[in-house]
Amino acid sequence: MEQESAKLTAQDGPMYEGKAKRVYKTDDDGIYMVSYKDDATAFNGQKRGTISGKGIVNNQMSNLFFQLLEQNGVPTHFVKELNERETLVRALTMLPVEVVIRNLAAGSMAARLGLEEGMPLSRPIVEYYYKRDDLGDPLVTVDHIEVLGMATPEDLAQVQRLALRVNEVLSETLRKVDVILVDFKLEFGKTKDGRIVLADEISPDTCRYWDANTKEKLDKDRFRRDLGGVEDAYAEMMRRVKEVTRL
Amino acid sequence: MEQESAKLTAQDGPMYEGKAKRVYKTDDDGIYMVSYKDDATAFNGQKRGTISGKGIVNNQMSNLFFQLLEQNGVPTHFVKELNERETLVRALTMLPVEVVIRNLAAGSMAARLGLEEGMPLSRPIVEYYYKRDDLGDPLVTVDHIEVLGMATPEDLAQVQRLALRVNEVLSETLRKVDVILVDFKLEFGKTKDGRIVLADEISPDTCRYWDANTKEKLDKDRFRRDLGGVEDAYAEMMRRVKEVTRL
Ligand SMILES: Nc1ncnc2c1ncn2[C@@H]1O[C@H](COP(=O)(O)OP(=O)(O)OP(=O)(O)O)[C@@H](O)[C@H]1O
Ligand SMILES: Nc1ncnc2c1ncn2[C@@H]1O[C@H](COP(=O)(O)OP(=O)(O)OP(=O)(O)O)[C@@H](O)[C@H]1O
Ligand SMILES: [Mg+2]
Ligand SMILES: [Mg+2]
Repeated sequence: MEQESAKLTAQDGPMYEGKAKRVYKTDDDGIYMVSYKDDATAFNGQKRGTISGKGIVNNQMSNLFFQLLEQNGVPTHFVKELNERETLVRALTMLPVEVVIRNLAAGSMAARLGLEEGMPLSRPIVEYYYKRDDLGDPLVTVDHIEVLGMATPEDLAQVQRLALRVNEVLSETLRKVDVILVDFKLEFGKTKDGRIVLADEISPDTCRYWDANTKEKLDKDRFRRDLGGVEDAYAEMMRRVKEVTRL
Repeated sequence: MEQESAKLTAQDGPMYEGKAKRVYKTDDDGIYMVSYKDDATAFNGQKRGTISGKGIVNNQMSNLFFQLLEQNGVPTHFVKELNERETLVRALTMLPVEVVIRNLAAGSMAARLGLEEGMPLSRPIVEYYYKRDDLGDPLVTVDHIEVLGMATPEDLAQVQRLALRVNEVLSETLRKVDVILVDFKLEFGKTKDGRIVLADEISPDTCRYWDANTKEKLDKDRFRRDLGGVEDAYAEMMRRVKEVTRL
C-alpha cells in the first residue's frame, strides 16, 4: 500500500509550519506528514503559550475521530498514525475557508450577536470564515465564497453536507461520555480528482467541549480565558474520547 | 383616500428620532410621517457633521426612486410627499436587518476581504447586517437570520428577490445619467397583513454612486473620507436623478 512506503524525506525541513502543526512532504507526493506541536495561540496569534502534551492529545484525538467519521461515510485525510505526534495524511489542496458548526451560541458568535453563551440554537448553524490571517479570518457568506471563487457552489454544498454529518456523528458520540459538542471548526481540501475531503484536525484546540453535567469547559477556552487546568482538560477529553471510540 | 386625511398629530414629538430622520405618528395609525434632517454621521455615529440641504435631497431622491420602483413591481412604503423634507409613509414593522447589495467591491466589504475598491463582481452580492447599533451592525448569514428569528425563511427569500429587483431597476436607470450604482443599503418592513415592503430611504447616504466617466464619488463617501464637495455631490446626484426619472 502506498502509505506504507511513504517516508519522511529527512533532508527537508517542514513544507509549512503553522501555529499548531508542521506539514512535511514525503517520498509519496500524494501523502504529507503532519507533526503536532504543544504551541498554543489564541485571538489570531495575539496570545501565545505552551500546553504540555497538547500535540499528543490533538494528534491522537483527531485520528480517532477521523477513523470514526470514515466509518460513518465522511471521507477524511487520515492515512496512518506514525507515533504520538506524527501522522500521515492525504496531500490535499485546501479550500481557503474555515467551516464552523455551532449547536449552542458561544465564543465569537455570542459576542458578535449579543447572545448569552450556551443559548441553544433551534438547528445547527454553519458559518464560513475566509482563511486569511492578515485579515483576521473574517466571516464570509455563501455569496462571498462563490463570487470571490473561494469554492464552487457544488464544492460548498458538499462541504456543508459533510460538516453537518460530522456534527451528527461527533455530537452523538460525545454525548455518550457526557460531553456537549458546543461548536467546532473544520477544514476541507480537494483531491487531485476533485473530491472534497475532511482535513486538518479535530481536537480541543478546534472544538468547544462542555461537560454535560457540570458545564465545565474541557477545551482551549481554558487557555484563551485563563481558567487554569488546561492540561488536565485536554487529558480528560482524551480519556473520554478513547473510551467512547473503543465502545 | 386614507393618505389625504393623515395629519401629523401636532401635539406629539417624534415617535422615533434616528441619526438621519425623525418618524412621527399621524392621525391614521397605518401612516407615519418621516422628516429628513441635515445631520450626517458615519462609522456607527463616531463621525458627526452636517450636510446642508441633505435632508431635502434625501427626501426627494428617495421618493422619486420609490415611485419608479412601484412602477416596476416593487412595493414601497411611499405614500405622499408633503414638502421638501417631509413624507407620509406606510407604518411598518421593520425587519431588524439591513440589506446591502453590491455590484463592485467597495467600503467595508473591500476592507474586510482585502479587495481593491472598484473590483467588479461576477454577480451582485447580497449581504445582511443585524440592525443593532450597540453591536456595530454585524454582518450576519442567512443561518443567523433564520435561527435567531430576525426573519422567516419565506420573508428573507422575498427580501432577497425584491432587493435584487431594486438593483436591476436602479442600476439601469442610473446608467442613463452616467452613474454607476456601486452598492447600496435597503431596509424592509412588514405590513399588518404580512407583506414585505421596501422602506426607509434610498439616497446618497445609503448608496455609493460613482460618475461613470470620471469615477468621481457622488455620495456620502465624500463626507466619510473628507473628500470635500459634499453638498455639491448631493446636489449633482439630485439633478441627475430628477433628469432620469422625468424621462
Ligand atoms: N491534508 C492536508 N493537506 C494539505 N494541507 C493541510 C492538510 N491538513 C491540514 N492542512 C493545512 O496544514 C496547516 C496546518 O497547520 P496549523 O494548524 O498549525 O496552521 P494554523 O497555524 O492553524 O494556520 P493556518 O491554518 O491559518 O495556516 C493548515 O494550513 C492546514 O490548512
Ligand atoms: N415605513 C416605516 N415604518 C416604520 N419605521 C420605518 C419606516 N421606514 C423607516 N423606518 C425606520 O425609521 C428610522 C429612520 O431613522 P434613521 O434613518 O434616522 O435611523 P438611523 O439613525 O439610520 O438608525 P437606525 O436605522 O439604526 O434606527 C429607522 O429606524 C428605520 O428603520
Ligand atoms: Mg490550524
Ligand atoms: Mg437610517
